[in-house]
Amino acid sequence: MKLTGKNIIGNRLSQEGDTAFYGENPATGERLEPAFYEASPSEINEAIEKSNRAFQYYRNKTGNEKAAFLEAVAEEILALDSVLIARTMEESGLTEGRLTGERGRTVGQLKLFAQCLREGSWVDARIDTADPERKPAPRPDIRSMQKALGPVGIFGASNFPFAFSVAGGDTVSAWAAGCPVVFKAHPAHPGTCELVGLAIQRAAERTDMPEGVFSMVHGRRTDIGMAIVRHPFIRAIGFTGSFSGGKALFDEANRRTVPIPVYAEMGSSNPVFILPRILKERREKIAQELAASVSLGVGQFCTNPGLVFVGPSADENNFRLDLSKQFAAISAGVMLSAGILNNYQKGISRLESVNGVVTMATGSGEAVLKGQARVFHSTASVFLQKRELEEEIFGPSTLVITTDDKQQLLQAAEQLGGHLTATIHGTEEDLQEYEELVNILEQKVGRLLLNGYPTGVEVCHAMVHGGPYPATTDSRTSSVGTLAIHRFTRPVCYQNFPQRLLPPELKDNNPLNIWRLIDGERRNN
Amino acid sequence: MKLTGKNIIGNRLSQEGDTAFYGENPATGERLEPAFYEASPSEINEAIEKSNRAFQYYRNKTGNEKAAFLEAVAEEILALDSVLIARTMEESGLTEGRLTGERGRTVGQLKLFAQCLREGSWVDARIDTADPERKPAPRPDIRSMQKALGPVGIFGASNFPFAFSVAGGDTVSAWAAGCPVVFKAHPAHPGTCELVGLAIQRAAERTDMPEGVFSMVHGRRTDIGMAIVRHPFIRAIGFTGSFSGGKALFDEANRRTVPIPVYAEMGSSNPVFILPRILKERREKIAQELAASVSLGVGQFCTNPGLVFVGPSADENNFRLDLSKQFAAISAGVMLSAGILNNYQKGISRLESVNGVVTMATGSGEAVLKGQARVFHSTASVFLQKRELEEEIFGPSTLVITTDDKQQLLQAAEQLGGHLTATIHGTEEDLQEYEELVNILEQKVGRLLLNGYPTGVEVCHAMVHGGPYPATTDSRTSSVGTLAIHRFTRPVCYQNFPQRLLPPELKDNNPLNIWRLIDGERRNN
Repeated sequence: MKLTGKNIIGNRLSQEGDTAFYGENPATGERLEPAFYEASPSEINEAIEKSNRAFQYYRNKTGNEKAAFLEAVAEEILALDSVLIARTMEESGLTEGRLTGERGRTVGQLKLFAQCLREGSWVDARIDTADPERKPAPRPDIRSMQKALGPVGIFGASNFPFAFSVAGGDTVSAWAAGCPVVFKAHPAHPGTCELVGLAIQRAAERTDMPEGVFSMVHGRRTDIGMAIVRHPFIRAIGFTGSFSGGKALFDEANRRTVPIPVYAEMGSSNPVFILPRILKERREKIAQELAASVSLGVGQFCTNPGLVFVGPSADENNFRLDLSKQFAAISAGVMLSAGILNNYQKGISRLESVNGVVTMATGSGEAVLKGQARVFHSTASVFLQKRELEEEIFGPSTLVITTDDKQQLLQAAEQLGGHLTATIHGTEEDLQEYEELVNILEQKVGRLLLNGYPTGVEVCHAMVHGGPYPATTDSRTSSVGTLAIHRFTRPVCYQNFPQRLLPPELKDNNPLNIWRLIDGERRNN
Repeated sequence: MKLTGKNIIGNRLSQEGDTAFYGENPATGERLEPAFYEASPSEINEAIEKSNRAFQYYRNKTGNEKAAFLEAVAEEILALDSVLIARTMEESGLTEGRLTGERGRTVGQLKLFAQCLREGSWVDARIDTADPERKPAPRPDIRSMQKALGPVGIFGASNFPFAFSVAGGDTVSAWAAGCPVVFKAHPAHPGTCELVGLAIQRAAERTDMPEGVFSMVHGRRTDIGMAIVRHPFIRAIGFTGSFSGGKALFDEANRRTVPIPVYAEMGSSNPVFILPRILKERREKIAQELAASVSLGVGQFCTNPGLVFVGPSADENNFRLDLSKQFAAISAGVMLSAGILNNYQKGISRLESVNGVVTMATGSGEAVLKGQARVFHSTASVFLQKRELEEEIFGPSTLVITTDDKQQLLQAAEQLGGHLTATIHGTEEDLQEYEELVNILEQKVGRLLLNGYPTGVEVCHAMVHGGPYPATTDSRTSSVGTLAIHRFTRPVCYQNFPQRLLPPELKDNNPLNIWRLIDGERRNN
């Protein structure tokens, strides 16, 4: 399969511009063929216009029709087989095992949404029946359900070239909602993007989806992304990446004549709290597991535990020695791109220059072209004064914060801003003593874990991958799991409509057999 | 019951500032005693700090406890009896009948939310059970539900001094979600606000709610509202009023260090489409009903039909004559305030100065201190060129737009921005011929009506009182009905939590007997 380097504009490939860039192998610094052509303003415009035309058809596709499309995308991705895995390995430095797993997750995600569409109850159908006899005024027949917002612009992440990229969670939830997608390809894995983009194009064609249900544009310049955000036909934005990137899109979207929602997931330090009794019981084990979680995939997860608060304990010194030993043994690993490695190294330097922060241990192996693990130590007194210690450093590092007493630990928890996750390690007794901690932390994050590690985000119905600002620009939702679909819908209400004109979800005889709220009662008949 | 003119800061009354203002009887222009004191910065701050402290308790109140509070508020409002109605009549110029009805709606709304809380399923509890045997990695136990956002700042509307004011839809949905409310009293009905505010204070006290679950500050200056929006403890804003007011709050909220959601309902022209066959059948009746809908409550409804598109028809001329006759017979009415009357008159002048727009008829009665009905006429060709014809004029006026052909009518529909409602009048045959119109309009509004009138918003589960920008700043929700509760929540997820630490909504044995999504299946056991 030969890559073309072109933009995917609905059913056609297009190369109007002459600014090109290349993928790069982060393990070697080598440039990867072919050249990819940045989309021109007219290509972006054409993609969005097609997307808007497609919306008029796609929004009315049935759940089964949309499900068939998602399942076809899953099949076409699997059909790419080793061609896809090989290209993504070259572009991302990620291992075959990791990428095979991530592909499985991506395909599983497409299937979960397909299932959800075939079942159909996600539309939150509500029916309040008429009462012509009511006084003083008759009660009308009122019915409502969730409907698609319109074309969505999506920006993928570099750290999950499948699961948070072209056919990733944002795209699949937008499609499930009934929204066409204009995808901005990630310049760190343009070849992967093209392979998956063409797989989608084939899937759309063979399941009879309208042209424009998917388009993909290449570009490294920020104005290419901004042109998507500014276009009046675009109705929502999905983004996973840095705070500065997400915030810039959010601000631009709010400056539009018609502002639109931006779902930007922008990073998190995923604080972990280790309470005294469990530290005594499981000290070495926790050190080992934590080091593994921090260094998993060279630390390149948005759920990487970057802050570890240790409760007041006589064991904390030994815990730090354990952790240091563990970190010293972590081999440096290839990071996703030269840019990410550079940012990681800058983050490390920034943190080690802070007064009151010391390096406990550095990982093994050469740092050339690779990210070296690092574990820092500071105290809660320093942390409470220096808000910058809370900022995410994307990569295999973590900062251990020791506390003088329970009060100080709770105070540190209170001071936290928004994060994706928070984790508590504690025995039953610890959790009783620190009960307030749960109450504090559930106001700071989207997901709370007990005695586990935040890396590894389950794709399911109950998952919340989100959290208060600055973890995301919209805490009211999740970017992983079926909750994500609601980001791209709004309720529409029909008053006194005859049966013929109602969507099937709202007809009296419930042809789709979905769960509905009828006069306040949940029923599936 | 003597009014104090003071701010309600949690459990106490406060008057720190010395800038005072008075309510005014819009029917006479007379000033109404007593003086109301604008809140000082420290009063605003104290109210919000109390609100934030209250949140720590109130967020964990059970559904039954919150329901008891809402029901007590309803009782205390009813107990004010004629004292409340009399003061509100004086301040608003609204009739006793109208206000008694609105009070019933407000009390009904409190009870509907109480019901919803006692039933409990609104939290969208989701449970994905663990699978320790899963390969390659065990599946953790994941549970999630909706939790309250935090203290909410609410700005009421002048046109519904009960239903969209102190204890109105925004307040009750925030309380239902678990959020304390800091209410900015409307300067057009400060006495009404105090009466209802004190009723809430009593209800909170007798149902053991934490101090700060409700506070209310007075003020006419915009910086008082802005101080609420800017305060870091405030987590969301509810607003009903003008576009300029809502947009200013929205922009300020997005400029915060931590941006927060703003639910501003900002107005709508509620386009009505009258198709040819029904015009032939029901011409006079429609003219009569439409004139009644436009002039109901002196046109002071956000769902007032301000734009009427007439399909191509030989009857349109007679329809305009009918309408003119109807409008000429409408008596001028007292409007809510001198400011609103003034804006209405300016809107009328603005519209009559547009080339291509003509006045068809003016209502009867003196315009002094009163709003006089007005019906205008223009054509779709003019409408398609002049976007300003779409803007809401708040008051008893409407603009009839005649069309040359079906194509032009659809084009005008396509051009519309966001509105709260759209209405189609048509026979079965009309609706078949104009089927596309439903498809176009459901992309423009929150609620679509057939052969009815948009005034009169039913408070129920299926209602959507909302719509795309500029009708609101957030189309993904409703400000009326139980859907409104979701504006003030976000999902929180618990991974591997022991039963003891889970909220009752998520415990295995389902102690609240609510509907939940368990491994993707809807169950209430």
